[in-house]
Amino acid sequence: MPFTRFDRHVDRHARTFTERLQQLCRMPSVAARGTGMRAMAEAVEQQMRRSGAGTRVFKMGSGYPIIFGECGAGPRCFLAYGHYDVQPVGHLTEWSSGPFAAEIRDGRLYARGASNSKGDLIARLAAVETYQKVYGKLPVCVRFIVEGEAGVGSPSLYRFTQEHAELLHAEGCIWDEGAKDTKDRFQLSLGFKGIVFLELRVHGARTDLHSKWGAIVPNPAWRLVQALSTITSPKGVITIDGLSSHVAPISPEDQEALQNIELDEAGLKREFRIGNWIRGMRGAALVKEHIFGPTCTICGIHTGHTEAGAKTVLPSAAMARLDFRLVPDLTPEIVINLLREHLDMRGFKDIEIIELGSAPLAKSSAQSSVARAAMSAAQEIYNVPPVIYPLDPSSGPVGAVCGANTPPTPVVSFGTSYTGSNPHGPDENIRLEDFLESIKFFGRIIFHLGKQGRRESGIHKAYVASEHKK
Amino acid sequence: MPFTRFDRHVDRHARTFTERLQQLCRMPSVAARGTGMRAMAEAVEQQMRRSGAGTRVFKMGSGYPIIFGECGAGPRCFLAYGHYDVQPVGHLTEWSSGPFAAEIRDGRLYARGASNSKGDLIARLAAVETYQKVYGKLPVCVRFIVEGEAGVGSPSLYRFTQEHAELLHAEGCIWDEGAKDTKDRFQLSLGFKGIVFLELRVHGARTDLHSKWGAIVPNPAWRLVQALSTITSPKGVITIDGLSSHVAPISPEDQEALQNIELDEAGLKREFRIGNWIRGMRGAALVKEHIFGPTCTICGIHTGHTEAGAKTVLPSAAMARLDFRLVPDLTPEIVINLLREHLDMRGFKDIEIIELGSAPLAKSSAQSSVARAAMSAAQEIYNVPPVIYPLDPSSGPVGAVCGANTPPTPVVSFGTSYTGSNPHGPDENIRLEDFLESIKFFGRIIFHLGKQGRRESGIHKAYVASEHKK
Repeated sequence: MPFTRFDRHVDRHARTFTERLQQLCRMPSVAARGTGMRAMAEAVEQQMRRSGAGTRVFKMGSGYPIIFGECGAGPRCFLAYGHYDVQPVGHLTEWSSGPFAAEIRDGRLYARGASNSKGDLIARLAAVETYQKVYGKLPVCVRFIVEGEAGVGSPSLYRFTQEHAELLHAEGCIWDEGAKDTKDRFQLSLGFKGIVFLELRVHGARTDLHSKWGAIVPNPAWRLVQALSTITSPKGVITIDGLSSHVAPISPEDQEALQNIELDEAGLKREFRIGNWIRGMRGAALVKEHIFGPTCTICGIHTGHTEAGAKTVLPSAAMARLDFRLVPDLTPEIVINLLREHLDMRGFKDIEIIELGSAPLAKSSAQSSVARAAMSAAQEIYNVPPVIYPLDPSSGPVGAVCGANTPPTPVVSFGTSYTGSNPHGPDENIRLEDFLESIKFFGRIIFHLGKQGRRESGIHKAYVASEHKK
Repeated sequence: MPFTRFDRHVDRHARTFTERLQQLCRMPSVAARGTGMRAMAEAVEQQMRRSGAGTRVFKMGSGYPIIFGECGAGPRCFLAYGHYDVQPVGHLTEWSSGPFAAEIRDGRLYARGASNSKGDLIARLAAVETYQKVYGKLPVCVRFIVEGEAGVGSPSLYRFTQEHAELLHAEGCIWDEGAKDTKDRFQLSLGFKGIVFLELRVHGARTDLHSKWGAIVPNPAWRLVQALSTITSPKGVITIDGLSSHVAPISPEDQEALQNIELDEAGLKREFRIGNWIRGMRGAALVKEHIFGPTCTICGIHTGHTEAGAKTVLPSAAMARLDFRLVPDLTPEIVINLLREHLDMRGFKDIEIIELGSAPLAKSSAQSSVARAAMSAAQEIYNVPPVIYPLDPSSGPVGAVCGANTPPTPVVSFGTSYTGSNPHGPDENIRLEDFLESIKFFGRIIFHLGKQGRRESGIHKAYVASEHKK
């Protein structure tokens, strides 16, 4: 399919689209902090309207609004998920430029949220706008669902999926997670791991004490360390009683898909600056573990005095945050229950487990219409064939959104990022070249989704004619 | 000994002495932060001069000055140690009033440093001043050594003990550590545990990563937890290979002293708000462990994201701070070497051990002149007999100061604090009543030290006559 008029329009408006993205990136919208969220939600709605979408704003209780935008029409409907909140910025000193300066250097736009995932949102809206300017009406109905709580466990989105399931009826769902790999191969995911994010808390004396009491006063930090050390082995294997028996064997279809995935081990090691992977794994074993291995990650531990200055205290409390990424057939409930039993069995009944957030896993077939459209579009846009992930190692509320339909809506996911995007760390960035390519890619997906329908209804001639007018 | 004129002078000047203390407490002097240290050093020197001491200021390299003050004369010389720096304030929200407001409520002075240990410093200077105003010249030479780095490992004081050992020749040394116990019994210590304060560091990827990498990228937080869990048992016993064989058996003399020590277990439990002591110990076993048990305390752990907001990261680094309190015959070197071997043996060669500070232990006899003077003075001042600790569970550079002489200078230690003083936590405070009592106590110690000499030289009549003039 020649898509020259579309691409030319994108190239001609590259500066405009980039400036729109910069505008959004200059607005801090850290959900965990709560600053600037209202202004950001309004800006997102405005951008949607500019792209020709009819919008509705859903406010679930005291949560940040979900911006819902619909363009195109017809019985065939697809969801496009996005989020306008960003991760906390972390230590400012680690950033080369302000996290909300949206500075462009060497063709990269640096900003908290550029990669995760304001770049995707603006690119997809730009694609819809361009499509309509160049070809007229969209061939299918596209429903944007853009939330503001991706970084804090998406409570509003979960509620939304329950209260407005009718808006989620769709033939497919397009998520915004993904990045090119170290060899710059475009990645398409056909599913996501689930997640459960927990905080473990231990309490000791009412306040931090002078550490001279160390011989006789129980230290919650030691207790936490002893409890944690039973959860994984020194080799990094999860050792929670009974958990491994809940992990489903990998299906033959998925085994086959795994064979096409190659991790650029050397490139990633360089990128991460690490010497070895866990347990010295490599090759097929490494890929399999990455995609289908359940994880238990210590995301943070804090206890006592850790700032500058030698302060010898016996801490009054200790806490650890753990996230588990869930593969088939693990669920958040299974993990929490098994962990509770595991700790109780070892005398750690005093250790509190608080659930900070969770999401079920989502998984779909390569034969779904969204998967086929995305694969066709990727073949046209990218020089090398895309790498298909049967499961993305990351997680999100995608499980709840896709699960609103029975059977669950097929999902595909991809993003504007690359391996150097560092979406949860300092100097988050995207390459502007990738951003423009993303717009062109999303435009082609819309075209292919429409073509699938037209094949059945035979009404695709108008589009071809329109393109040939160029 | 009637000490009425001395006590009357103290009572008449109670407000002046209290205001001097407030003045010092209103000056922040957190060595770990470095703010206000110069002004505080000058204020200390001024207070010493006001008390009739000749002063010298020693600046060791770039450290905070040591203020040296000498009053009285004669061949018999005693050291009085103090420090003008204070601990970091911790979380401001946990304080009922500003840590440097020096607010007086219900007869208590609340301030960071009030208990640890500006109260002791001002009380001792006030005692020297009062003694001279009431009786004339001191009967012995008292040398104040007041440092500004007690909270950061006392590097200058260590250097001072090496470069100015001649100033440390003394018959006895009076330290400033100690507090009344929960039953308000005055405590006298005849020694201190040693200490070694370490930081363990583990490094992972070059930056915090998205935790979706948790199945394959090594997590330094897990590695730290696994390593730490081998250092103590779940029951709180230090399990470093070979360490217990370096702990000396308790001498018969110390066994006897232990029998006179009683921990107010119920009172302390209420104070600390804890249900049980380590391993459910109580009675004599608890006292023995508290005084003669080596400790390994996790003072702090930090890794990853622990602030508000659900940030699921795979941390790039993890660190723990451990302090070991050392009993006979453990030394900092023994602990560091054994810990290194212990970790290496278990495959944790990558875990860095950084020594943040250390001090040898100090221990002396109940028959020393300072011990006898302090016990006599305590019998006169306090209603109940003092409790003698053969070893104080706390530590400091006292080992280096006392070790400047051969044999080591006998040390006694006591303080103006009580069990509610919370010297390393929020709402640090002392009772003003204790503060005034401290002045009277220190005055009597000077008298008894002089009397010991006069017994030998027969020149004590002048003092008795002077007192009878009242």
